[in-house]
This record gives sequence, structure tokens and C-alpha cells, in this order.
Amino acid sequence: MRIKDELFGKEVLDADIQIVGKVSDVIFDKDSFEITDIVLKKTGISEQIKASENIIPMELVKVIGDKILLKGEDDI
Amino acid sequence: MRIKDELFGKEVLDADIQIVGKVSDVIFDKDSFEITDIVLKKTGISEQIKASENIIPMELVKVIGDKILLKGEDDI
Repeated sequence: MRIKDELFGKEVLDADIQIVGKVSDVIFDKDSFEITDIVLKKTGISEQIKASENIIPMELVKVIGDKILLKGEDDI
Repeated sequence: MRIKDELFGKEVLDADIQIVGKVSDVIFDKDSFEITDIVLKKTGISEQIKASENIIPMELVKVIGDKILLKGEDDI
């Protein structure tokens, strides 16, 4: 999957299928080449991610499809 | 390191320190979240990458700094 063409702008949904934002950037480890976090441009208000500003660690990502689905409390 | 802010547009140098292009996109594995390839917009002519069009597998990347340095034959 291409980051610029396919990931940027993708809507991110929380476990309640509420839109928490759109992907605006991606953070990776420049030595392991692993993606560590997604940077969101918020489009709604979400209590869950307020503390971490708008950066979502990849551990919270459940599925990347046409949207990005985050894990809920049951998944963690 | 942020992909949009810091990686896109970065110049890619081959082992002879010739510019082969600039990063225009990045391909990742959507299940492992690992970056697998860099997509280049060519700015020069390079025999080495002509065959693979303008996609560089991460195995050929030696260092990501202010520029991206590719491995030479001695490194592979």
C-alpha cells in the first residue's frame, strides 16, 4: 500500500465507528523502517486520543482497509 | 522521522554519490506496518534502477540522513 497515494487522507474510525480524524502524516523508525505512529488531522472530537494529541501508535490500529479501524478496549 | 514532513522530497544518492531521484512516495506492508520500498521521482539517469523503474526496495537503503544513501555493490 502506498502511503501518499493510499494512506494519506484515509478516515480513522474508533471502535464505536466514530470518525476521529484523517491521516495527515506517518512516523517511522529510520533504522528499522517500521511505521510506529499515524499522525491525524482531527475531524471530530474524541476523548480517547485527546491525551496523545493527534498521534496514534500503530499498536492501536486494528485494520487498514478503505478506512482505518482502531482497537477498542476489548482488543487491547 | 515523519514521512510527509521529512522523507518526501529527500534526495536519494547511489554509492557513487550521484543523485538518482527524490522520494515521492513510500510503500508499506499494511499488516506488518513495515516500509518495503521507496518510490522515486527521477531527477537524473541511473542505470542501476532503470530495470526496477523507480521503486527502490528498502534492502538497498544504507543510511537515511539529510539525504538517503543507497548501498553499493560492496554492501550487498
